[in-house]
Amino acid sequence: MRTLAPTEAGNASRSSDAPQTTLRVAVAGATGYAGRELLCLLARHPWTRVVRLMSSGRHEKKEFPIEHSHPMLRGKFDVLCEPLSPEALVPAEVDLVFLATPHQTALELVPSLLERNIRVIDLSAAFRLKDASIYPRWYGFEHHAHQALEEAVYGLTELNAAEVRQARLVANPGCYATSVILGLAPLLKMGWVDLSAGIISDSKSGASGAGRAPSDKLHFVEVNENCRAYGLFNHRHVPEMLQALGLEERGFIFTPHLLPITRGILSTIYVRLAKPRSAEEVAALYHDFYSQAPLVRVLGTVLPEIQSVAYTNYTDIGFSLDRDGQRMIIVSALDNLGKGAAGQAVQNMNLMFGFEEETALT
Amino acid sequence: MRTLAPTEAGNASRSSDAPQTTLRVAVAGATGYAGRELLCLLARHPWTRVVRLMSSGRHEKKEFPIEHSHPMLRGKFDVLCEPLSPEALVPAEVDLVFLATPHQTALELVPSLLERNIRVIDLSAAFRLKDASIYPRWYGFEHHAHQALEEAVYGLTELNAAEVRQARLVANPGCYATSVILGLAPLLKMGWVDLSAGIISDSKSGASGAGRAPSDKLHFVEVNENCRAYGLFNHRHVPEMLQALGLEERGFIFTPHLLPITRGILSTIYVRLAKPRSAEEVAALYHDFYSQAPLVRVLGTVLPEIQSVAYTNYTDIGFSLDRDGQRMIIVSALDNLGKGAAGQAVQNMNLMFGFEEETALT
Amino acid sequence: MRTLAPTEAGNASRSSDAPQTTLRVAVAGATGYAGRELLCLLARHPWTRVVRLMSSGRHEKKEFPIEHSHPMLRGKFDVLCEPLSPEALVPAEVDLVFLATPHQTALELVPSLLERNIRVIDLSAAFRLKDASIYPRWYGFEHHAHQALEEAVYGLTELNAAEVRQARLVANPGCYATSVILGLAPLLKMGWVDLSAGIISDSKSGASGAGRAPSDKLHFVEVNENCRAYGLFNHRHVPEMLQALGLEERGFIFTPHLLPITRGILSTIYVRLAKPRSAEEVAALYHDFYSQAPLVRVLGTVLPEIQSVAYTNYTDIGFSLDRDGQRMIIVSALDNLGKGAAGQAVQNMNLMFGFEEETALT
Amino acid sequence: MRTLAPTEAGNASRSSDAPQTTLRVAVAGATGYAGRELLCLLARHPWTRVVRLMSSGRHEKKEFPIEHSHPMLRGKFDVLCEPLSPEALVPAEVDLVFLATPHQTALELVPSLLERNIRVIDLSAAFRLKDASIYPRWYGFEHHAHQALEEAVYGLTELNAAEVRQARLVANPGCYATSVILGLAPLLKMGWVDLSAGIISDSKSGASGAGRAPSDKLHFVEVNENCRAYGLFNHRHVPEMLQALGLEERGFIFTPHLLPITRGILSTIYVRLAKPRSAEEVAALYHDFYSQAPLVRVLGTVLPEIQSVAYTNYTDIGFSLDRDGQRMIIVSALDNLGKGAAGQAVQNMNLMFGFEEETALT
Repeated sequence: MRTLAPTEAGNASRSSDAPQTTLRVAVAGATGYAGRELLCLLARHPWTRVVRLMSSGRHEKKEFPIEHSHPMLRGKFDVLCEPLSPEALVPAEVDLVFLATPHQTALELVPSLLERNIRVIDLSAAFRLKDASIYPRWYGFEHHAHQALEEAVYGLTELNAAEVRQARLVANPGCYATSVILGLAPLLKMGWVDLSAGIISDSKSGASGAGRAPSDKLHFVEVNENCRAYGLFNHRHVPEMLQALGLEERGFIFTPHLLPITRGILSTIYVRLAKPRSAEEVAALYHDFYSQAPLVRVLGTVLPEIQSVAYTNYTDIGFSLDRDGQRMIIVSALDNLGKGAAGQAVQNMNLMFGFEEETALT
Repeated sequence: MRTLAPTEAGNASRSSDAPQTTLRVAVAGATGYAGRELLCLLARHPWTRVVRLMSSGRHEKKEFPIEHSHPMLRGKFDVLCEPLSPEALVPAEVDLVFLATPHQTALELVPSLLERNIRVIDLSAAFRLKDASIYPRWYGFEHHAHQALEEAVYGLTELNAAEVRQARLVANPGCYATSVILGLAPLLKMGWVDLSAGIISDSKSGASGAGRAPSDKLHFVEVNENCRAYGLFNHRHVPEMLQALGLEERGFIFTPHLLPITRGILSTIYVRLAKPRSAEEVAALYHDFYSQAPLVRVLGTVLPEIQSVAYTNYTDIGFSLDRDGQRMIIVSALDNLGKGAAGQAVQNMNLMFGFEEETALT
Repeated sequence: MRTLAPTEAGNASRSSDAPQTTLRVAVAGATGYAGRELLCLLARHPWTRVVRLMSSGRHEKKEFPIEHSHPMLRGKFDVLCEPLSPEALVPAEVDLVFLATPHQTALELVPSLLERNIRVIDLSAAFRLKDASIYPRWYGFEHHAHQALEEAVYGLTELNAAEVRQARLVANPGCYATSVILGLAPLLKMGWVDLSAGIISDSKSGASGAGRAPSDKLHFVEVNENCRAYGLFNHRHVPEMLQALGLEERGFIFTPHLLPITRGILSTIYVRLAKPRSAEEVAALYHDFYSQAPLVRVLGTVLPEIQSVAYTNYTDIGFSLDRDGQRMIIVSALDNLGKGAAGQAVQNMNLMFGFEEETALT
Repeated sequence: MRTLAPTEAGNASRSSDAPQTTLRVAVAGATGYAGRELLCLLARHPWTRVVRLMSSGRHEKKEFPIEHSHPMLRGKFDVLCEPLSPEALVPAEVDLVFLATPHQTALELVPSLLERNIRVIDLSAAFRLKDASIYPRWYGFEHHAHQALEEAVYGLTELNAAEVRQARLVANPGCYATSVILGLAPLLKMGWVDLSAGIISDSKSGASGAGRAPSDKLHFVEVNENCRAYGLFNHRHVPEMLQALGLEERGFIFTPHLLPITRGILSTIYVRLAKPRSAEEVAALYHDFYSQAPLVRVLGTVLPEIQSVAYTNYTDIGFSLDRDGQRMIIVSALDNLGKGAAGQAVQNMNLMFGFEEETALT
């Protein structure tokens, strides 16, 4: 990687201790909702320049202005969006590739990118699970890129900052997974939870989390004025939650629901503490745990709500303790496209390339 | 047609002066939103029995319970939904067929149904325009069923009740068209409008009016928190409005907009009166014109809103006159699936078969 | 009560085995959302006539047409809405009073209505809890109407039909409570649940459940594109759930959430079965338990969603069992204004006065 | 005013040609929606520091953290929000005051602020209309601050940039007015419109435009799944549109509608051109007119939609010409809180204090 200098296309920001050249990034899968959000964030990032936009869609055959796909990006990018062409992603042109493609597309692309020594942040699930053997059950495909899988760092920044900084390949966590893991990590790392009682996360997500491909289930009329549970006992984000939190499948239930909103996830998480705690103790634990995390806001016994985090890259966490001091409900909220996808990807990029962690994110 | 007797499957209603046998109806295109609404209305109609449900979709190959398509109809119909099979629609079994299919499917089906002497209410546009030669421009297909077209009655019940009663084929009006025609008819029939000033209808519709087929444009995320105009100067409902109202294309502008709601149309209609009128005069005209119309509610200078008509079969009409007594805004509201589609279809059925006009509709 | 004859104002329904005179009902609290829904249902009930409409609001000083408050009821009722005047509710004029007022208004009204021998269906919580001593904790007021409280029947029709038939005073259940109780009752009545594991209901409701009084929290902008939990460990519907299900407070958690929709509740309920069961066994239990309940639809392992019950009086119940046959999630859905309030009130009325249980409700 | 230097609290932006000290701003009316948006923008503005937050509400008696009112601003401002105290706004502490208060509060405050030589950007309508005598008709109060009114510059930046740069008092335009004026200005300034035909703007706005005070009409349930017209022939934004565009009241109709969305305005504007024009000519006119306007995006015959401008400070403008080249529909879209209020206020500030026009706005 070259030294970095501030972008001219970006805003006029400059900082004396900033890197000397601009980071050249490519986005593959630019036409989806995560791609869109990523571009919004990159457009205001002072140290990056988007040099390549690629669509993984089957339909596009030719280059097109990205505003055809995302009208709100009108005038933000000069570079046209082109069909996915991995061979164009070469170190002479690109320092970092974001993959916002289907899982299997990412699975195919990553090894060759690493071989060419291009760093990758993969927003798909292709490199999230350390145990390759469970991909068939949860994702329906065999995983043969074992070496890349071993190298991949699970990019939940608040937990894995040191590894992320060194990573060539970051597996960006799932949106639901981020909300649940951040909500539970402090308690579990401290061993405060009575695991025998089981942990339940009842999570609710806006429709952008389901992606942009049209389907019966995502028709406006089907989502509007509705709420439904789905994926009971078998949602794909479960194994990455178990892996990150060190839980057993039989001690954890995750139930996702579809909300009639565009952006945001609210997770209501039920645990039993091993021994009674006061609200002050719990609040102190969370504040302490996230004291260095600029994108996690600990609210104590104030409960987060989706509106406070929508269109942001924050995760808000609050909780309520029953009078017995043991039954506890944690509520965590984030924007599934922000901290749950593109925001976290940029946060990972910031660490990987030595920028301030929250650059372009607050 | 046989004499009619009350249905046992329906609610327990009975009336001494009611027909003696039950009307046997078939619904082709039962899996769409208009089909769903039609089934909801027929389920509570005391004098009809749904004997046949057909899907015009390409996907369905086998019979299936209609609740697979419309969970809210669970337990309402015994008859399974089958792939479209016109040959099954025979007078020995069916008295009336509702077509809620694509235009061209209706175009193909209607002549043979009429030949078999089965009455038809067609919710598509295939038989709405008297001038066959304009179909290519507005609908993109040639219209060769001239005889059926000639026979068809435009089923805007409030204007054409007498013809509807005798009709074998009713062309059920478009949803936007109904809202605009009912809003303007009293003024135009009385010649009160200064046509040289032009008439503008700025109309807004919920997303169920665009049908159930998934598409990029109807994805929840694209419709939610949005509003957009479309079809400027060339929406397909324009020619039926011109035809019903006796207007010239150059004297009329119709602009549809997509609202982030499921059901309902609001039309804001701008006219200039040929001479000054008082609000009382105008209100009297509308009240008078619709005095025999049980499904039109004239609100005078109270303005209608979508919520008051959603999930009903009413059209609400109100207006505002400027201080000059000549500039006038008419606001009309209806449910695009109710009076704008299925409700009007049932209203037409009621007239055709001698039931009370508003049976099952209020 | 006089014998009952079919209403002339209603639809033309009549039935030879029907009561001989019309039930004269009054609605106090007619201007709220539950009152509105009640009026919609009563308008299509063939055996009732609304003889009195009263508003419990502080603002109204004079009579007004109910359509001023509910435009969708335009033309449905001749009787004007008047300020609350209990003395006008006399047996010579009224057979049944629905109270859709604040709790304390109901608390004051009920004893005198019973004294006058007028039957009452109370949609407030004033007579739901058998133990008067817990009202201060949950509702903030002392309960002194002990005799009426003792007499009151908790009107969850599916559980208490026999008592409801004889009741002079029915306490209509809360909306959340109905969804949770109906979801759990079959399992709990059969003793299938491992109570030591605790039961959790994570419930989600549309905004009409919060009533019509404007407030910061119910402003469109605050509810739209949002979801939040509230009332953790202390929602008012908890004690009626405990009472109806025979549960202890420490073995049950109920967490309500506000959804950005108008109507509907979805409850996701987590239990652990005492021993492994198959999905077939569980489905059979539910089907059996609700075999005589026309307004409960058991979906087996199909999951309910809000859209299928919105604008209906049904409760839909489905479930999912984990592979261990013990961890179980029940999902129950209803319309908070339908089966969760006005629909259940009418269902209770139907039983109390010998009508078919589902009259006007399906 | 002191020289300006970059804020330390802001992001690290700095520019060699930037002013040398930080602009000290106060926001009065900080708890409403426009106040919130203003704070969001100021939080990312590199050259300003918010030194004073004041609430104009009647309820607040003490200081409180602004996040109590706007949870999404958690951690963004150290300064507490205090009750409105004009005497605290002194030149030694404050360079600029934003007023996002009720009209009459602004009317009272402005003269004394100007007297103290503090510059003001007033988001209310108190100083928008040059003719003091029409305030009673449109706003219901007498306007006695004639000198300030005379001095005030109507801050529609694209039309009045030169005056804004010199202004001590900027009257920030109304949200609807901005969308209509920007849509029509190019045509009217060039004299291309046949004024005798009349101009109609049918505009649609999200609910945040109606302010944050709770009311019956803004209850979630009343706005959701609804759309209604209001203020026919007498909306308060009409006179500022007439004034800015040089139109007569009798030649212009403006009809606002309430949409069930949080943010955004779409105006559909109907004009007749004095002589036929091609789409290319019209597009060229608009592109030319706005060639120096960084916050107006001319889309030509592509139609704007609300989603593309929500959460931005842009106005998007597109149009459609009928085949006759004379009937023309202009569609303009903006975010009522962005370019329609706070974004425009910041744009005005940028001009007044010599910053880049779009600082913090793109």
